[in-house]
Amino acid sequence: MALIGVLGGMGPLATVDFLDQVVRLTGASCDQEHLPMVVANLPHTPDRSRAIIDGAADPLPALIDGIDLLNRNGVALIVIPCNSAHHWYAQLSERSAAPILHISEASVAALPREARRVALLATGGTLASDFYQSALGVRGMEPVLPGAAAQADVAACIAAVKAGDIDEAAAHLGAALAALAQEDVDAALMACTEIPLAARALRDAALPLVDSTRALARATVDYALARGWNRPV
Amino acid sequence: MALIGVLGGMGPLATVDFLDQVVRLTGASCDQEHLPMVVANLPHTPDRSRAIIDGAADPLPALIDGIDLLNRNGVALIVIPCNSAHHWYAQLSERSAAPILHISEASVAALPREARRVALLATGGTLASDFYQSALGVRGMEPVLPGAAAQADVAACIAAVKAGDIDEAAAHLGAALAALAQEDVDAALMACTEIPLAARALRDAALPLVDSTRALARATVDYALARGWNRPV
Repeated sequence: MALIGVLGGMGPLATVDFLDQVVRLTGASCDQEHLPMVVANLPHTPDRSRAIIDGAADPLPALIDGIDLLNRNGVALIVIPCNSAHHWYAQLSERSAAPILHISEASVAALPREARRVALLATGGTLASDFYQSALGVRGMEPVLPGAAAQADVAACIAAVKAGDIDEAAAHLGAALAALAQEDVDAALMACTEIPLAARALRDAALPLVDSTRALARATVDYALARGWNRPV
Repeated sequence: MALIGVLGGMGPLATVDFLDQVVRLTGASCDQEHLPMVVANLPHTPDRSRAIIDGAADPLPALIDGIDLLNRNGVALIVIPCNSAHHWYAQLSERSAAPILHISEASVAALPREARRVALLATGGTLASDFYQSALGVRGMEPVLPGAAAQADVAACIAAVKAGDIDEAAAHLGAALAALAQEDVDAALMACTEIPLAARALRDAALPLVDSTRALARATVDYALARGWNRPV
């Protein structure tokens, strides 16, 4: 029986959302057709964005502990429903026996093919890390970064979700999207797994939104179903 | 850092609901104040209810594998968001180094103190196992079991949630509750972790409902916060 390893807790509500999407996308008709998983929900991992931007406490040792835990449990695939953590993707992949799906590949593949200018809704750390800008560039897409005020709203949205205040998060997200809608952009990529939780509380969004949590869940389910991991051995 | 072990996947959507409740009840203001967990999501575990009623494939080996997995990861507490699995509580507790909270104790403690006659909404296996009837009896409460037609609706509700069809599940639950409301009962205990997912889709319930998933989540959070497991070491 192949196990999917989920390195989660960054944040915890985003991990719950990711698991919910995996369960719903699996299309099972009874328990036994669902996908086996081991979830390491490790919220104590130091803040990824602050480490990238400010050189605050390094999360890499905690991330490696999580990767080691999952590998000790014999997982055959690892996914990490936290975009900022992918700043350390190379180190984590090198450490891991199990392959790790990259959330930016799944997310950029989920964008409309005709999109050219794509707004990035992400932590300051993810933006500074530049991996989304590279992934968009490879596909001939142009990243559009929020201005300072809109980025402050994005950061406040993320912090509010981590504190469980979805209404406040949605208000900040709405403000950021209204500002970005003034730019000439085709879609906004929610490149932080907290943001989709706020987006679902918005009445209507000012821009087409692509959800990195859902994109990673879809990639995970596709990978697992293609290998028959929903069939008990 | 103390870890909470969750033996889940029975069913997967109920496990997601349990995790969601734990995260929301923790009352954290940032990632690092949330509770660390390891979740063994093992949906391939043979059907608990069928094993109890019909002597179908025994789930105990798979349950023990899950308990062993969690203990190998050094968890300090185990919870199992599946009521029927508690038929094997004695064997699992004996096997486990970490203590296991009993879902029926958490659930019965969540009933209104003044309740006397309590309808049990559960799998046929949980009802046959009799542990809820005992837990109610200890508190001087009288269990009321659904009649055959209502029990068929409860079973159909549970199966529909496991297959992801919440609307169909809610319709069956509504029918079962309407039948039970004709009896002289004070509350209905949703003693199967699929049922609360259906209940949330009901406009209004014919009876006061107590949620075993939420009760177990509350007991888990209380246990962990009392021991400071939300504080990184």
